[in-house]
Amino acid sequence: MTDKVKVALDAMGGDNAPREIVKGAVEAVREDERIQVILIGKEALVQAELDRYEYDKERILVINADEVISNDEAPVMAIRQKKNSSIVVALNMVKKGEADAFVSAGSTGAILVGSQLVVGRIRGIERAPLAPLIPTMDGVSLLIDCGANVDARASHLVQFAKMGSLYMEHVIGIPEPKVAIVNIGAEEEKGNMLVKETYPLLKNCNEINFIGSIEARDIPYGKADVIVCEAFVGNVILKLYEGVAGVLVKQIKDGLMSTTVSKIGAALAKPALKKTLKALDASEYGGAPMLGLNGLVVKTHGSSNSTEVKNSIIQCALFKEQNINEKIKKKIILTDNE
Amino acid sequence: MTDKVKVALDAMGGDNAPREIVKGAVEAVREDERIQVILIGKEALVQAELDRYEYDKERILVINADEVISNDEAPVMAIRQKKNSSIVVALNMVKKGEADAFVSAGSTGAILVGSQLVVGRIRGIERAPLAPLIPTMDGVSLLIDCGANVDARASHLVQFAKMGSLYMEHVIGIPEPKVAIVNIGAEEEKGNMLVKETYPLLKNCNEINFIGSIEARDIPYGKADVIVCEAFVGNVILKLYEGVAGVLVKQIKDGLMSTTVSKIGAALAKPALKKTLKALDASEYGGAPMLGLNGLVVKTHGSSNSTEVKNSIIQCALFKEQNINEKIKKKIILTDNE
Repeated sequence: MTDKVKVALDAMGGDNAPREIVKGAVEAVREDERIQVILIGKEALVQAELDRYEYDKERILVINADEVISNDEAPVMAIRQKKNSSIVVALNMVKKGEADAFVSAGSTGAILVGSQLVVGRIRGIERAPLAPLIPTMDGVSLLIDCGANVDARASHLVQFAKMGSLYMEHVIGIPEPKVAIVNIGAEEEKGNMLVKETYPLLKNCNEINFIGSIEARDIPYGKADVIVCEAFVGNVILKLYEGVAGVLVKQIKDGLMSTTVSKIGAALAKPALKKTLKALDASEYGGAPMLGLNGLVVKTHGSSNSTEVKNSIIQCALFKEQNINEKIKKKIILTDNE
Repeated sequence: MTDKVKVALDAMGGDNAPREIVKGAVEAVREDERIQVILIGKEALVQAELDRYEYDKERILVINADEVISNDEAPVMAIRQKKNSSIVVALNMVKKGEADAFVSAGSTGAILVGSQLVVGRIRGIERAPLAPLIPTMDGVSLLIDCGANVDARASHLVQFAKMGSLYMEHVIGIPEPKVAIVNIGAEEEKGNMLVKETYPLLKNCNEINFIGSIEARDIPYGKADVIVCEAFVGNVILKLYEGVAGVLVKQIKDGLMSTTVSKIGAALAKPALKKTLKALDASEYGGAPMLGLNGLVVKTHGSSNSTEVKNSIIQCALFKEQNINEKIKKKIILTDNE
């Protein structure tokens, strides 16, 4: 079993835990033979869910963790006090090398804080960004950073650009990914103090394919593969994306249901529309990796279903196979110190 | 004619100038008898457009301005050098009190810079924010600031909150508008340095109805009437809004056109859909006011048609009638100095 990628999976995290989480684990080991999943959570509950399926008992293990960290708890306090929570138990496994990666649909705050406190950053990495994939007209882009540490410095953004570039090239499979910095205009002299300071550093960076500034308007069109920004701005982008799309789809659905004739039209158009909206769903690529840690932590949506969980687990195998953390150590930290 | 609200209108600005601009002027004076429009631009061109309509010659005047500032020009340079451009001529009229307001669909950069340089800020106002109305599920919200001056201080954001609140109450007609600050979480302790510093100031501000933080996800749902943020973040929100909506509508249209059956469905649903998308269009309320100036400057979309131009002109009448600048002087500057 030693050659398998060991993924610790938070069986208790997310709106659909444990049912969809366990189902995702079963689907992942069926689909990808490189993977072993270690489900962490209330054992009896998790085992009962697992017993609904036929599965290879050597490739799905269950480890008990009695406590659960909810979304309402203050993250730092929760990580410190709930030593036997699924999140803390799993992160300790990653720290000790008993797991290669950790996937969770649980509290974003607790995962961000816990990853830093328990797993820790790769030596030389100043901050560990959270980098979700967002859907675009062309496919997906990596939005880095959307984490909890705001007010970043220019040197942080440069590391984000390099780590994001490695991730998009080797995990998502985009050769020479286009890297851009979020700005309020296309010209180099535009921007706030942070962007003005970061821009020339990125421009002089040989390891990445820097294409300059990107205005927020162009993000959904897929004009860059790696979108670099400070975490406050990243959070605004990520959440507004969800909000605008949610409202627009709702309004359009209401519009389609507003008259008898439009209802007939909607029924006819439904399969085509469904396909379109599915194309705008990034979850088929997996969750949001937290990069620069001594291991991999992947945050999936709180509302994740089994497919998103499965894809997030498979993403971990690719991350390990591609030696992303070795690449980060070689390509980022060495070049930083030159 | 002295009791009329005099609106200087940039006949040369925007993608559809001068045709749609002139048409908007004609529609405005027909619809609202309080208004006199002064069209500024290449006289022969503008007059030729005007001659297509029956109009009251005392209520639409034309003033010649030979030069045009394009979107590609560096704003500061353009304002300094093109003294006879429609923008500079119009701003000088506002400064001298020959016009009460200026409406333009031209270069945002030139309008922002020119307004500060030529018209100037009300004494005591630290910055003049640009505050577009954005569509929500409920109606519209005012997003303040989306201007060119980034890296704001807490005291700037407090003035934005007060000015925005006055505008939404007296011009848009929302009693006790709900004011919120853009943040990455709902709790008071969340946020970057600027937000953490601004939050308690807004909380202690008696002149506004402060409801706390708003996450970007909730903006399209209309949870606040006045959305306060620093201009870099405001720009990102405004442009991402346009981008996501644009891509989503395009994808849905493509989806509807993808099969023969869905095409029939689309044809049936079209009127209902059109109505829905129209509801998500903020231009019926007018353009984006630039607040805190010795006069009013309104920036309308570069792609404005006559209806948006007309609504922006009528908005100026309401602004004048409601004495917004007097209210700003009394309610903001006096309370600031208490």
